[in-house]
Amino acid sequence: MSDLHWKTGITKTQPNTISLRGYPIDQLMGRVSFSQAVYLALKGEFPTPEAGRLVDAIFVSSIDHGASPPSVLAARTVASTGGELNAAVAAGVLAISRFHGGAIEEGMQLFLAMERRMTEKSQSVAQAAEAVLEEMKAAGRRASGFGHRLHTRDPRTEKLFGLAAELGFAGRYVQMARAAEAALGKQLGKPLPINVDGAIAALLCELGFPPEVGNAFFIIARVPGLVAHVREEKTREKPMRKIHPEDFEYDGPGEREV
Amino acid sequence: MSDLHWKTGITKTQPNTISLRGYPIDQLMGRVSFSQAVYLALKGEFPTPEAGRLVDAIFVSSIDHGASPPSVLAARTVASTGGELNAAVAAGVLAISRFHGGAIEEGMQLFLAMERRMTEKSQSVAQAAEAVLEEMKAAGRRASGFGHRLHTRDPRTEKLFGLAAELGFAGRYVQMARAAEAALGKQLGKPLPINVDGAIAALLCELGFPPEVGNAFFIIARVPGLVAHVREEKTREKPMRKIHPEDFEYDGPGEREV
Amino acid sequence: MSDLHWKTGITKTQPNTISLRGYPIDQLMGRVSFSQAVYLALKGEFPTPEAGRLVDAIFVSSIDHGASPPSVLAARTVASTGGELNAAVAAGVLAISRFHGGAIEEGMQLFLAMERRMTEKSQSVAQAAEAVLEEMKAAGRRASGFGHRLHTRDPRTEKLFGLAAELGFAGRYVQMARAAEAALGKQLGKPLPINVDGAIAALLCELGFPPEVGNAFFIIARVPGLVAHVREEKTREKPMRKIHPEDFEYDGPGEREV
Amino acid sequence: MSDLHWKTGITKTQPNTISLRGYPIDQLMGRVSFSQAVYLALKGEFPTPEAGRLVDAIFVSSIDHGASPPSVLAARTVASTGGELNAAVAAGVLAISRFHGGAIEEGMQLFLAMERRMTEKSQSVAQAAEAVLEEMKAAGRRASGFGHRLHTRDPRTEKLFGLAAELGFAGRYVQMARAAEAALGKQLGKPLPINVDGAIAALLCELGFPPEVGNAFFIIARVPGLVAHVREEKTREKPMRKIHPEDFEYDGPGEREV
Repeated sequence: MSDLHWKTGITKTQPNTISLRGYPIDQLMGRVSFSQAVYLALKGEFPTPEAGRLVDAIFVSSIDHGASPPSVLAARTVASTGGELNAAVAAGVLAISRFHGGAIEEGMQLFLAMERRMTEKSQSVAQAAEAVLEEMKAAGRRASGFGHRLHTRDPRTEKLFGLAAELGFAGRYVQMARAAEAALGKQLGKPLPINVDGAIAALLCELGFPPEVGNAFFIIARVPGLVAHVREEKTREKPMRKIHPEDFEYDGPGEREV
Repeated sequence: MSDLHWKTGITKTQPNTISLRGYPIDQLMGRVSFSQAVYLALKGEFPTPEAGRLVDAIFVSSIDHGASPPSVLAARTVASTGGELNAAVAAGVLAISRFHGGAIEEGMQLFLAMERRMTEKSQSVAQAAEAVLEEMKAAGRRASGFGHRLHTRDPRTEKLFGLAAELGFAGRYVQMARAAEAALGKQLGKPLPINVDGAIAALLCELGFPPEVGNAFFIIARVPGLVAHVREEKTREKPMRKIHPEDFEYDGPGEREV
Repeated sequence: MSDLHWKTGITKTQPNTISLRGYPIDQLMGRVSFSQAVYLALKGEFPTPEAGRLVDAIFVSSIDHGASPPSVLAARTVASTGGELNAAVAAGVLAISRFHGGAIEEGMQLFLAMERRMTEKSQSVAQAAEAVLEEMKAAGRRASGFGHRLHTRDPRTEKLFGLAAELGFAGRYVQMARAAEAALGKQLGKPLPINVDGAIAALLCELGFPPEVGNAFFIIARVPGLVAHVREEKTREKPMRKIHPEDFEYDGPGEREV
Repeated sequence: MSDLHWKTGITKTQPNTISLRGYPIDQLMGRVSFSQAVYLALKGEFPTPEAGRLVDAIFVSSIDHGASPPSVLAARTVASTGGELNAAVAAGVLAISRFHGGAIEEGMQLFLAMERRMTEKSQSVAQAAEAVLEEMKAAGRRASGFGHRLHTRDPRTEKLFGLAAELGFAGRYVQMARAAEAALGKQLGKPLPINVDGAIAALLCELGFPPEVGNAFFIIARVPGLVAHVREEKTREKPMRKIHPEDFEYDGPGEREV
């Protein structure tokens, strides 16, 4: 043992055994979903089946949303120069930052600020929403997790909240999200509906995750989408093309059902 | 439409609808696992439930294997300098390259080479294994996906092959993996068992994925593990510590069962 | 011209002419040093020869300082997995963040805070130094750019200040750095000498650069060092070795003179 | 000394002394240019003043060539999401790969192949050029370092060769580059002039660098350009804008002279 000795509580590796947070990985395999394993890795405790299903839905909701997000453009740009798949994906991950994906963490901070206010000042959820949003406005800060450039009614938001209700996770943070949506509409004089990031923020609070992993959920969800785009770039396009950020069209399969 | 107009077959985004490979994402949410969605994103077709379960097991098998892999050390090193979570994860992804994770792609190439030989020269699987491995030896190339520094009998390998058999995916590529293992043992005069990368290689061939996405499966599986390490580094360690690559011990929960 | 039309003031590219900030690059070549061109690129104006020489000295001072900094370890770790040179360098750059290289920007912020205080409150440089450092202490923030783990008297600091004096750049920011060093020693009850980052911070203020490029100067200076380490890792070491962050020795040429 | 003990020949760090390849850094500062220090770091030996000047010209030639190269677009894309400067620069570096910057290494490989042929088969430079290019054509490989999308007569190429002649570096590799240009024109039936990458390739061969650092020279030269673009993106543009890869115009200073 050197003076650099350190400790980790994530994975124990011994000859012929690997245990994640205490659970032998070979016993998890075939019994739990990847999303359950991700929950276990990040939180340290095993999720209920309902929590696992909610995490699955969160990841599915964010796996991809087209070719125009900066993470996709950064990944395709690197792929187009002949960069390896992992380098292209890494460039995409570098673009998942404050303004792209970051709304999840900021939304979580908003709900936690409302919660502190409700406790400390014995305010109702509606009062807390108005007060916190007023403070943010005064400080020149925009609330994250509301509104969308394209979707007036984001289908993913309603689905996430519906599933949360079914699975028993539509608790106080979902209430706060609704209250913040109402207060924001009042503040702005027009509705600014919760978007998918805001919904995920509320649900990650329900699941007990800290805001600091908000961005991680987006990254984990989106990496497969980035891989799909990198592969398409490498197999379908010429190297070093100029990648237009808007002028593309979808030519994949027509709408179909599972 | 400009002269830079291009096409993509991955995701169609319209106001209030997002469809992945033709499937509206809000209809996938709550009905399919993240692993099924990843399969859909990468392959373009929806997996059978059995394929979805196999992909789940592949991802769970590779979510983390301790603090010593280079991807973990690179990610922790960046985290330790105060880098943001996404930057630390990106550094980890950059370390998932030829010698770390790369064995999956190389294993897939090996099995595809055996398959070509079986077809072109009407050889048995055992003959093809010996011939291909002989050629590789002559060219000074080592077969990837066999042997492990630590595990003499990797628990994840047996579990993956067991699940593949149960789920109906223990077909010709699993046979090839076994034949290659036997031929390699003969060539070297001592057993060199298939490791988890070799097993994943065989199963990804069974699932019909091309070798070029082999590394992607490892990246997708490992990103959550990297996130857990980055969070632990940021919450438990001082910035700028010297990170010893071996001298650490596990102090997390004792062994437990799902 | 599309509705995405945008403007840039860095480089004009036309058939057979490329001009950086208005200067045809082929006219700069052979007449100006790389450091002068970097100054021009970042500041938009051409440096005096003296400023160019000072920038040269800043870059030379930070080109490398051994194998233990996190940027080197991150770059070597990626190189060790078989990653390409650019990917390894990128990983190194990701490690040049708040706690590694970041002291330059933080030092610049400190000097600018002192300057504001001197102007606004008509304080002397010594008063401003004490006041700002007292405020930082009260807020639990440590002053960056002072003290070193290894060097009690960093040879690079004295050299930089000496050159600055010779070249006419030992102005008010150098004075502020000295005043901050004195105030810090008083506050702590023991000397905490300016380190190379603190000296560079003062000189970049003298040169009129904003703090936001402080880290850039370190990155530009260090990339060649990272390249040297990546090449050494790839040519001298086996892939996937465990890279000890301290237990290495120098075996290059003995001390020599230009 | 642990069993992970290793050796490095780049920098020796002791209390109050740091020596690069044997030269105390504080003695280099103020006496040598950054380009000379880069040469020393990468090659291990100190350059002649002439070699230093040539390296300076190489770096100046490649510091930036406008906003459309993929490295710039990747860096700006990450900057636009709120990513830190180092993360944006890292994304840019990831885009300096085979098809962007890679022509330098490939050009060097071409000249070394010609040189081997001249030695082994006692061929003239013209014969070697024709033979090697014929072989490449037969193998379906395009020669790198010749032709340019925009510049019919790249001003940087002529300048580099002119300086090389002045400084005594227009030796056999420059001859080979000219011979390859002639042979290529004959092969294609139209002139395909050496571009700046091809010229740099020839000069790096003259300077005795191995092809594996070809890309490094481009990275080192271009990082300052990337920094300038990242700063411009962050100070002049709104976050998350769609970055058009072609539809931009230069609005900086008009042409001027040093």
